[in-house]
Amino acid sequence: MILDKKTKILIVGLGLIGGSYAKGFSKKGYDVSAIDTDPETIRYALQNGIISKGAVAPSAELVGSADLVIFAVYPRVIVSWIKENQHLFKGGAIITDVTGVKSCIVYDIQELIRKDVEFIAAHPMAGKEVYGVKNSDETIFYQANYIVVPTDKNTFEAIETCKAVGETLEFARISSLPPMAHDEMIGFVSQLTHCIAICLMTCSKSDHLVDYTGDSFRDLTRIARINEDMWSELFMLNKDALLRQMEKFMAEFEVFHSMLKNDDVEGMKNKMRLSTEKRALFDKPKGEN
Amino acid sequence: MILDKKTKILIVGLGLIGGSYAKGFSKKGYDVSAIDTDPETIRYALQNGIISKGAVAPSAELVGSADLVIFAVYPRVIVSWIKENQHLFKGGAIITDVTGVKSCIVYDIQELIRKDVEFIAAHPMAGKEVYGVKNSDETIFYQANYIVVPTDKNTFEAIETCKAVGETLEFARISSLPPMAHDEMIGFVSQLTHCIAICLMTCSKSDHLVDYTGDSFRDLTRIARINEDMWSELFMLNKDALLRQMEKFMAEFEVFHSMLKNDDVEGMKNKMRLSTEKRALFDKPKGEN
Repeated sequence: MILDKKTKILIVGLGLIGGSYAKGFSKKGYDVSAIDTDPETIRYALQNGIISKGAVAPSAELVGSADLVIFAVYPRVIVSWIKENQHLFKGGAIITDVTGVKSCIVYDIQELIRKDVEFIAAHPMAGKEVYGVKNSDETIFYQANYIVVPTDKNTFEAIETCKAVGETLEFARISSLPPMAHDEMIGFVSQLTHCIAICLMTCSKSDHLVDYTGDSFRDLTRIARINEDMWSELFMLNKDALLRQMEKFMAEFEVFHSMLKNDDVEGMKNKMRLSTEKRALFDKPKGEN
Repeated sequence: MILDKKTKILIVGLGLIGGSYAKGFSKKGYDVSAIDTDPETIRYALQNGIISKGAVAPSAELVGSADLVIFAVYPRVIVSWIKENQHLFKGGAIITDVTGVKSCIVYDIQELIRKDVEFIAAHPMAGKEVYGVKNSDETIFYQANYIVVPTDKNTFEAIETCKAVGETLEFARISSLPPMAHDEMIGFVSQLTHCIAICLMTCSKSDHLVDYTGDSFRDLTRIARINEDMWSELFMLNKDALLRQMEKFMAEFEVFHSMLKNDDVEGMKNKMRLSTEKRALFDKPKGEN
């Protein structure tokens, strides 16, 4: 199955990301249903045309008719959900997810899942500092990256289907990385940055920073408003990779600290030139390389 | 003198900030002239109505007729400029600046300046990652903070005039801090954040991060595109305060690293709750406290 308008899509977990997926697919004319344990979430999504069907628990009807199942729940929940409910999957269904850590769940899921369905992991790198279906917004994907995270067990068809999800939702860039490499990368670009933002906020005693902060401090701490349950779980699930990235950053930061301490102005300027050059690559228009 | 429409304003240094000041004042109907060593800058500013008069070197006419002189050049340049040219100042003139470091220049300037003029420091906390008068834009001030940095020597009138500059340019928040406290604060909210952004960019060898980065990494590294001459000078001029802030941040970052290493999930969650709470203060509407 590659995605087409007859593909029936089921989203499990209708929070910010699940809701945004649902809106994106529904607007493109797909048939989208959802399961969420919160009745109010399902009621709201039905009433606002975000989904065509919904339920607060797995049902044979919803799960059994879905060609594509997308998990948008906490990583550990996916594993237990599949264990308990995988007898309901339609034969041939493709199962994917949206979680930010991969090695710790992908192999487990591929090991335990029924052999007539296929799990292919994906990571949409989009978010907001707000939660829930009411804040969902499919436009958060338009500037964002989407990473397909295949293992050696995945088929070409499932990988292509998973890419088609990213294309349909209009992500800006779609790429592919195996689980370990993905986790190293995400430890660096996402989790390390959250650790930095948290520590920037917590290392000052002042409650009056708002009177003095420029854009730079605001930018660096935007993500310091953080869902502590989700992120502590993500950090723990990617602990080794994140510890390595934190250590790499600390070592570099100490080098810079020494340069300043020792009046090594040329050394600091070289670091600044390098950072400027590397950061400039981000601001090129898409496709220009 | 408190600012009024008869106040003649001279801006020394017509870069991004000087140019944005000039645009802001000109749009409000003030008479603005400028001195900049680059003839093309002066030509452009005259041609586009950003200033009414301009010169590439200090002249008795321009400097001698200015009621308010605003220095928008590198910190060290202000001191030497005043030494060489202060005989040209109009008696009673108020002199201010826009530099990001204060202790290292304010006292020197107040010591050497003519007794019939007054220097009052100010720090507009606004900027862009682009340079020059052609990129200047007075709207960068509308969401930004403006800090008056008076010493014990400053008069009430000069302080009020300096505040009026920030009000006229429509800064979002205007506050006041003495030089040492200003430099501590700026070491934290501005310089430390730039050090972090630089180290985040330089600690990775990859040139393909753009394919994987989410908003968080982009936000934290936006300021890693940095003018190395200006920022290395700012860092050196505020060296002690910045070193202390870097050490405070490193200590906090190491605490978080230890929590993760030791599976201290509750400890991490507490840090996240604290950072969330402190960061939330930034997102309140102006005036709501």
